[in-house]
Amino acid sequence: MQELKDRILAEGQNLGDGILKIDSILNHQIDAGLIARCGQEIARQFRDAGVDRILTAEVSGIVPALATGMALSVPVVYARKVKPITMYGPVFLETAPSHTKGVDVNLLVAAEFMPSGQRILIVDDFLASGRTIRSLVRIIHGAKSTCVGIACVVEKNFEGGRALLEHYGVPICSLATITSMDNGQITFAE
Amino acid sequence: MQELKDRILAEGQNLGDGILKIDSILNHQIDAGLIARCGQEIARQFRDAGVDRILTAEVSGIVPALATGMALSVPVVYARKVKPITMYGPVFLETAPSHTKGVDVNLLVAAEFMPSGQRILIVDDFLASGRTIRSLVRIIHGAKSTCVGIACVVEKNFEGGRALLEHYGVPICSLATITSMDNGQITFAE
Repeated sequence: MQELKDRILAEGQNLGDGILKIDSILNHQIDAGLIARCGQEIARQFRDAGVDRILTAEVSGIVPALATGMALSVPVVYARKVKPITMYGPVFLETAPSHTKGVDVNLLVAAEFMPSGQRILIVDDFLASGRTIRSLVRIIHGAKSTCVGIACVVEKNFEGGRALLEHYGVPICSLATITSMDNGQITFAE
Repeated sequence: MQELKDRILAEGQNLGDGILKIDSILNHQIDAGLIARCGQEIARQFRDAGVDRILTAEVSGIVPALATGMALSVPVVYARKVKPITMYGPVFLETAPSHTKGVDVNLLVAAEFMPSGQRILIVDDFLASGRTIRSLVRIIHGAKSTCVGIACVVEKNFEGGRALLEHYGVPICSLATITSMDNGQITFAE
């Protein structure tokens, strides 16, 4: 998605250690128009996949997931990291390391919003190591539903996420794929 | 907004202590279509207010704020509760008690996304005690910008939030106003 790549080149900051700051677009300030178009593009790619619902993880995954849910007219469920007092009854629980916080975090989804037999699309902001998304796939499989695809706004393909997830055999779509962040640069795939 | 009230009556759960669980609509599962319409209704009410940007607080405020930002074509900024490593430089910091977590939480907004001289609309999921929203107003005033209004999806008007915020003299809009949650009931204002 050229518009997204242009904005990342113009506004993204390479903070080293593979950390890309795009806080002016998605992770603190949200460009609502651009994110709506990202959601529409993800929706276009999965229009024929028979998506019943979208699964993501709080916090920043909610933004592209909601935009995609609006475009596909399907509900969105976001995994919680901390159990709120409104969450009771059975939950699906996985853990995954947080890239920007340096610790393992829980991913919690109430069973009431993760029914069996559904076709579920995972949408997240970043695909990096793939471990958060792998946890979301496990939650879907634990619910006896089907993961029909994985979509992210930005993929850092030098961090191995795609390789970790490929054996699930589902389409993996990224709107902007970064192949290198070496030497303070941001290099996109052709 | 009658559609919203109908859904809250059908699916909302009164957990006591003034806690309303609407996890099937907004706070865990998101009904993307309903939330888009909520954003359009808030946008309609503030169409002539000259809104430059929207301010909310993570996590669940992001959902109606993004929907409103899409409808008004303005950027959305969400206050962070924990400083991520991508946040550096000056920040605006306020604290507010969390209704569902029972502790004080920080609200952090990077100064780079909170410029002076702007007309800013606050959008949040709930208006209860009003203390989170008061902290957001303080951040706006600290940035020498103007709060032009406050919008929420659900107001619990028996918790005093409107009274706390009224002296700011800005329009306060709620899409569904609950006047009582006594005896396990959910009662809306006429």
